[in-house]
Amino acid sequence: MIIQKTSNSRIGEFDPENIGFGTAFIDHMIVCEYENGKWGEVRLMPYGPLPFTPAMMGVNYGQACFEGMKAYKDKDGEVYLFRPEKNFERINKSAKRLAMPEITEEMFIGGLKALVDMDRNWIPYGEGKSLYIRPLIFATEEALKARIANKYMFAIVATPVQSYYTEPVSVKISDFYSRAASGGVGSAKAAGNYAASFYPTKLAAEEGYEQIIWTDDATHKYFEESGTMNVFVRINDTIYTPPTSEKILDGVTRDSFLQLAKHRGIDVKVEPVEVAKVLEAHSKEELIEVWGVGTAVVTSVFKAIGYKDQKLTLPELSEEESFALTLKKALVDIQTNKAEDPFGWRVKVEKHILETA
Amino acid sequence: MIIQKTSNSRIGEFDPENIGFGTAFIDHMIVCEYENGKWGEVRLMPYGPLPFTPAMMGVNYGQACFEGMKAYKDKDGEVYLFRPEKNFERINKSAKRLAMPEITEEMFIGGLKALVDMDRNWIPYGEGKSLYIRPLIFATEEALKARIANKYMFAIVATPVQSYYTEPVSVKISDFYSRAASGGVGSAKAAGNYAASFYPTKLAAEEGYEQIIWTDDATHKYFEESGTMNVFVRINDTIYTPPTSEKILDGVTRDSFLQLAKHRGIDVKVEPVEVAKVLEAHSKEELIEVWGVGTAVVTSVFKAIGYKDQKLTLPELSEEESFALTLKKALVDIQTNKAEDPFGWRVKVEKHILETA
Ligand SMILES: Cc1ncc(COP(=O)(O)O)c(C=O)c1O
Ligand SMILES: Cc1ncc(COP(=O)(O)O)c(C=O)c1O
Repeated sequence: MIIQKTSNSRIGEFDPENIGFGTAFIDHMIVCEYENGKWGEVRLMPYGPLPFTPAMMGVNYGQACFEGMKAYKDKDGEVYLFRPEKNFERINKSAKRLAMPEITEEMFIGGLKALVDMDRNWIPYGEGKSLYIRPLIFATEEALKARIANKYMFAIVATPVQSYYTEPVSVKISDFYSRAASGGVGSAKAAGNYAASFYPTKLAAEEGYEQIIWTDDATHKYFEESGTMNVFVRINDTIYTPPTSEKILDGVTRDSFLQLAKHRGIDVKVEPVEVAKVLEAHSKEELIEVWGVGTAVVTSVFKAIGYKDQKLTLPELSEEESFALTLKKALVDIQTNKAEDPFGWRVKVEKHILETA
Repeated sequence: MIIQKTSNSRIGEFDPENIGFGTAFIDHMIVCEYENGKWGEVRLMPYGPLPFTPAMMGVNYGQACFEGMKAYKDKDGEVYLFRPEKNFERINKSAKRLAMPEITEEMFIGGLKALVDMDRNWIPYGEGKSLYIRPLIFATEEALKARIANKYMFAIVATPVQSYYTEPVSVKISDFYSRAASGGVGSAKAAGNYAASFYPTKLAAEEGYEQIIWTDDATHKYFEESGTMNVFVRINDTIYTPPTSEKILDGVTRDSFLQLAKHRGIDVKVEPVEVAKVLEAHSKEELIEVWGVGTAVVTSVFKAIGYKDQKLTLPELSEEESFALTLKKALVDIQTNKAEDPFGWRVKVEKHILETA
C-alpha cells in the first residue's frame, strides 16, 4: 500500500455534535486503479478531486457499483466494522453482473482497515453515530462506445453520520413503477438502480409518502423491497420477508435480522409476500408491523401503507411490543459493542495497522 | 457562451484515413454546470479532465443520461446535423425519468452547433465517416446519500468515427436476461441500462453471438430491442417493429426508417413482434430479414438468430433485394447531402457561428 498522508487535516473543522449525512468527508480515501487487465497498488491518499473527463465510461454507461457499511466506536474508543466480508462478497457479485473486474480481499478489507484506522478520530461516538463508508468501483476509461471498459477505479470514501431518531414513515405500494427487471440487475448494488428509483419516489412524496414498497414489475402482486431497504412484514407473531433473488438485494441487515429473530425464537418465514395477503391481514387486524432494514438507518418503521386509493394505518407499538425495534436494538448493541456477539459479526480495527504491517 | 479556445490543438496528430471508434477526442468540449436550481453559462473549452471525487453522485447513484448523434460532411465541406431536435427532446425525457434537471434548447442545439463549427476540421469526409457526438448530463454533487442530487454537469464531447463495412452478425434471442423492467427506465438513455447489458452480451458472445435480441422480462415472448438498437423484422414484404413504450427507446433511426419505408410504399406494421411469429415465419421460409437500427452503425443486418438450442439462418440478400440495405442507403444519402431531403431532417451547421452571433 502506498501511503500519502494529508498535510492539511480538516478534522479541526469537524464537530461530532453537529453532523449532517454524507457531505463532510474524512481526511483520506483509498484509491486503486485497474489497467491492462490488472489492479495496481492500493493508495491511501488525501480525500479530494481526481482528473476525469465527461467521456469517462462510468458516467456514460453506468458501469459502477458500490457498497455501504459503517464503522462504530465503543465507549473505550475501540473501533469495529460489521460483517465486512459480506460487503466484500457483494461488491464482487455486483461487479460480476456489471462485467467489471472483481477486487481482492486485501484491497477491500485491507483498504477499509487502513483507512478507518488512519482516520479513526473522525468516527463519532454516541447513539446513532458512526462512520458511513462507501467502497465503489467505476469505469474510468474515456471512450464513447457502449462496451465493457478497460480501465476502472476502486475507491473508498467515508463520512461521519448520525441517524437522528427516525420518525415512522408512510410508504406507498407501487402499482406501476418498478425497481428491477426479471433477468436484470436488481440484486446488484448497481449505480443505475438508484437513479431509476428517484423519480417514482418523488411522485410518491407528492402524494405524501416517504418511500415506495417496490413490487414485482410484471404483476405488482408481490413485495420486493422498500426504498433502498429490504422489507419485513409481521402478521400476528410471524415475520415474513421475501427470499432474495436476482431482483432483490441480499442485504446484510436483512440477514442479521433473520439470524437475530431465529436466535430469539421468533417465527420467521422467508417466502414471497403477497400484497393481497398483507391487505387481508390488515382487514383482520392481524397486520402488526411492516418495516424496512438497511445499513443507513438500520430500521425504518412504517406507520401507514398506501395502496391505490387506500391508506392502511398500522398500530403504534412500544419498543417492547415491536419486533422491529427489539431486533434493531439487539443489532445496534452488537454493532457498537454494548452486547455479546454470539455470531462473530464484529471485526475490530486494530490501531497503527500501517506502522505494524 | 464563454469561449476558451485551445492553444494546443491536437488536430496535427489526427489522421482521417485511420480512425478508431470513440477514443480520439476533438479539441474542444461544451460544459455547463447546474447549481442552486439553475444552469450556469455554457462554456466551450479545451477537451480534457475536470476535477471530480469518487463521491460524485453520478458514479455512485447513476444519475446520468446521454445522447448519441452525428455530424456529417458533404463533398463541398459543408457540415450537417441530423434531426438534432429529436435528441434534444429525448435527453430531456431521459433527464425527467431520472429526476435530473432538463436543459434548454439553446444549451443543447446552440452548444452542438458552436462545438461542431469550432472543430469542423475534425469531421472526416467519406463513406461511413462522421463525427460522433455525445451530449450527456450527470450528477456532480459529492454526497453519499441515495437521493436526487443538487449539482449537475451538461457536457458535449465528440470523436471522429468511421463505420467500416459491417459484416452481418448473429444474434441471440434472450430467454433469461433482460434490458428493461415494466415501469422501469428502458425508454430513457439512462447510463445504467448499458452497464446492465454488458454481462448478458458477454455470455452471448461466448456462445458465438455478437448481440442480443432483448425480449420482455416477464415472458420473453416479445421482441423489444437488439443490442443498443431498435429492431425490425421483415416477413414476406411487410416490415414489423415493436411500438415504443416505457421499455423501448424511441430511436431516431427507427423513426426515420419508418418514415422512409412508408414514403417508398413499403408495408409497415408497428405492433408487438412475437418470438413465436418470427420462428413460424422462418419455418415457412417467409422470414426474409431481421436487422437493428441506430445512429452508430445505421443498420446491422442479421445473418442468423439463435433461440434456445436452435440457430435460424437468414437468406443472404443483395442490396437491391434487402429492405434493410435499401433504406439504409436512402437514409445515409440524406444524412450526407447526397440526396434530396423531403422530410427536412438535415440541419446545416453555419460557419463562424460564434463570430457572427
Ligand atoms: C436496494 C437496497 N436494498 C437493501 C439494502 C440493505 O442492504 P444492507 O442491509 O446490506 O445495507 C440496500 C443498501 O443499503 C439497498 O441499496
Ligand atoms: C438502447 C438503444 N436502443 C436504440 C437506439 C437507437 O437510437 P437512435 O436511432 O436514436 O440512435 C439506441 C441508441 O443508439 C440505444 O441506446
